[in-house]
Amino acid sequence: MVNPLLVPELRELLNEKSYAELCEFCESIHPAQVAEFLSALNPKEIWEILSHLSPHLRGEIFSHIDEDVQLEMINSLGRDVMGKLLSDMPPDDRVDLVKRLSEEQRQAIIPAMAQAEREDLRRLIAYPEGTAGSVMTSEYATLTPELTVDEALLKLRREAPDKETIYYCYVVDENHRLKGFVSLKDLIVAPHGARVKDIMYEDVIFARANDDQEEVARIIQKYDLLAIPVLDDEQRLVGIITHDDAMDILQQEQQEDVEKLMAIGGPHEVGVYTKLSTWEHFKSRTPWILVLAIMGFVSGFIIQSYEGILLQVAILASFMPMLTGTGGNAGSQSATLVIRALAVKEITVKDALKVLVKEFGVAFLMSLVLATIAYFRVMVFYGNTPTLDHVTPQAVGLAVAVALALQVIVSTLIGALLPLVAVSVKIDPAVVASPLLATMVDIFGLLIYFNVARLILHL
Amino acid sequence: MVNPLLVPELRELLNEKSYAELCEFCESIHPAQVAEFLSALNPKEIWEILSHLSPHLRGEIFSHIDEDVQLEMINSLGRDVMGKLLSDMPPDDRVDLVKRLSEEQRQAIIPAMAQAEREDLRRLIAYPEGTAGSVMTSEYATLTPELTVDEALLKLRREAPDKETIYYCYVVDENHRLKGFVSLKDLIVAPHGARVKDIMYEDVIFARANDDQEEVARIIQKYDLLAIPVLDDEQRLVGIITHDDAMDILQQEQQEDVEKLMAIGGPHEVGVYTKLSTWEHFKSRTPWILVLAIMGFVSGFIIQSYEGILLQVAILASFMPMLTGTGGNAGSQSATLVIRALAVKEITVKDALKVLVKEFGVAFLMSLVLATIAYFRVMVFYGNTPTLDHVTPQAVGLAVAVALALQVIVSTLIGALLPLVAVSVKIDPAVVASPLLATMVDIFGLLIYFNVARLILHL
Repeated sequence: MVNPLLVPELRELLNEKSYAELCEFCESIHPAQVAEFLSALNPKEIWEILSHLSPHLRGEIFSHIDEDVQLEMINSLGRDVMGKLLSDMPPDDRVDLVKRLSEEQRQAIIPAMAQAEREDLRRLIAYPEGTAGSVMTSEYATLTPELTVDEALLKLRREAPDKETIYYCYVVDENHRLKGFVSLKDLIVAPHGARVKDIMYEDVIFARANDDQEEVARIIQKYDLLAIPVLDDEQRLVGIITHDDAMDILQQEQQEDVEKLMAIGGPHEVGVYTKLSTWEHFKSRTPWILVLAIMGFVSGFIIQSYEGILLQVAILASFMPMLTGTGGNAGSQSATLVIRALAVKEITVKDALKVLVKEFGVAFLMSLVLATIAYFRVMVFYGNTPTLDHVTPQAVGLAVAVALALQVIVSTLIGALLPLVAVSVKIDPAVVASPLLATMVDIFGLLIYFNVARLILHL
Repeated sequence: MVNPLLVPELRELLNEKSYAELCEFCESIHPAQVAEFLSALNPKEIWEILSHLSPHLRGEIFSHIDEDVQLEMINSLGRDVMGKLLSDMPPDDRVDLVKRLSEEQRQAIIPAMAQAEREDLRRLIAYPEGTAGSVMTSEYATLTPELTVDEALLKLRREAPDKETIYYCYVVDENHRLKGFVSLKDLIVAPHGARVKDIMYEDVIFARANDDQEEVARIIQKYDLLAIPVLDDEQRLVGIITHDDAMDILQQEQQEDVEKLMAIGGPHEVGVYTKLSTWEHFKSRTPWILVLAIMGFVSGFIIQSYEGILLQVAILASFMPMLTGTGGNAGSQSATLVIRALAVKEITVKDALKVLVKEFGVAFLMSLVLATIAYFRVMVFYGNTPTLDHVTPQAVGLAVAVALALQVIVSTLIGALLPLVAVSVKIDPAVVASPLLATMVDIFGLLIYFNVARLILHL
């Protein structure tokens, strides 16, 4: 994405010490775009440019710089410079960055930060990962109820450069308890002379600092909010979460679910595929594959214990992969849909029976189609052979069809049931679904197959 | 989510014709919350309440009402009422709703709409599904370069009720060509007397009406925008896409990818699991399961043609599911990661070689671990048996280990390669990956297994 033509020009401006032009460049485009260009320079060059910008813009640009480059800058620039840069960052991005630092680095840099920012950092970093508190920012705009609209606009105008957003303003009392909400639009259209308390909404949609970050992000999505206020247990306003962070949270949570379904551990951030080394990929991807392979040996035991059946009617072995595979697909489908419906709160554990009834219906219809196809497939290929390993092709076709139908129904129900059980015992459904589902489907599938064959073929 | 206690109260207020109180209720909470309450009433009751609200609020609330209830209202309320309601809706939501109507319904209702809204609808609905044009809204705020900041604020104040957002304003010339951008924050903090052209950003991040909606949503995400302007080929501003729509688009596209990976067709909207009937679930889920099952028979042919090997060393059959299963898991992992990296534009087809080299590295390390485990697993269980179906346990262990190692490497590479090939021939990678991957992994896995066994065990 970086325009390579511009980087030499930036270097030239730096060599000529044309700081006015550099500043103009940085102010004319989006901080994220500036950050992309700067990432091509070395830490000293980046700082040389940033140091000439306003603290606010500097912090914005630095927070958009690639994390690896941020860490490189921390390692190569002095602690005073870094303390300054950290102080200028938006509070939520600052917390994210500090969380990646070693204890040693933290101890070096944090004391070099401005006091207010240092205290803010200590407060925000205390919230456990995954809570609303851990992703909120403390740069929000507040008003008091008695302000007139004109006074409120004047206050916002003065404070605007230091706030993440001035479009949503939160009305607080002297104890910082949330009393209401007005948007900048409300203030702009309000009649002159009105007071904030006259136009504010008292029924504010809010989150608690200990709420799950995904649930809070879903509220922002549902109500199309620009930001949501975060309160502590005493109704005091402690931060806000903005729409852009909610978008990132939702995407990361959804990606996590997919990767768990595909048995991938480790970091789930966007855009890390190329960044992670082969060794890191290996570490995050191997554990589940290994667990699944070891559990796969269980199906081996089942096959071994029914070896007699396979030796008598060898053709039965050739339908095994289709049978376990189809069960696996049907189970993944229902698991995916149920996990999804649980995640967006469309269903809860209480709807388990309703879900199972629906899944049974779907699986029943599906099994009719699949069984018919399987039967005719056997007939088309072996129908003219008088006997197939001492049994009639009709009997083999029937056994495969019945086993497949049962397998699809059982697998679909297991796929729907596992996430529901996981949620009811407070385990992440996506993590349980993948390995357990694959193993259970294989085991049930093989047991169904061999027993159906034994009954129908009288083995 | 609906508080059931409030619904009878709403009905009572309706019966008493206490419209002032009803209006107050509707104005005091978020339109989406009002919509939830109203959904519990019948269409006539809903309209009775909505008809007493301002057109803007009425449109907002109606656009948040559950789609099924919206359609029910369209069927039971008169065309004049519905024409009015449609005219009041935000343009982008209106387009979405009209797209769901039958030709007959459209012909009845559209002529009853106000003329400006009717023309706007015809213009927006012409953009193909999936493009930026199809999701944009036409209620954006524009300014002209020569306006002073005070004039601009006055204009925004007047127009605010009719705009989706006044926080981002687009500066256009007399031909409606985009010349720049100012935020309401910029206007508020600007010095008195300044003109829009003095403070506007000329380098605006924009999208084209024919751009892919997902790509545009990613730009909004990347730059943390509240909205992005959409231009036609002559640089004229034709609409904007707001952050909340971008969030929904990203989530829907990601969900689509997951469901395609899990071989589920049909609608991918959020919250449709319980709404879709059993029959609709059956229709969307069966096709791929069927295709996969039919392709699964291919592995049957392979097993059948190597039947001799299984009859000689029956124990080999018991490792088949573990082998194909592990290959499938390894392949899904690499496919998921590569599809994801392609979707977020972290990699392109040009990086194919780099991706394959990385995947080979990961798979190689993984195969070492898995092969070792497999060998020792055979030794632990059969090490003391002098011969296992006429071959030594050591030889069986070696055959299983080598086959598993090769299978993991081949499957991982196929999983990475398929999405890359799909993208380069402009097919959706998520659709191709699932069925083809499963089939190819099974086929290659069995071929590898039987041939490795034949060579090592001299069969």
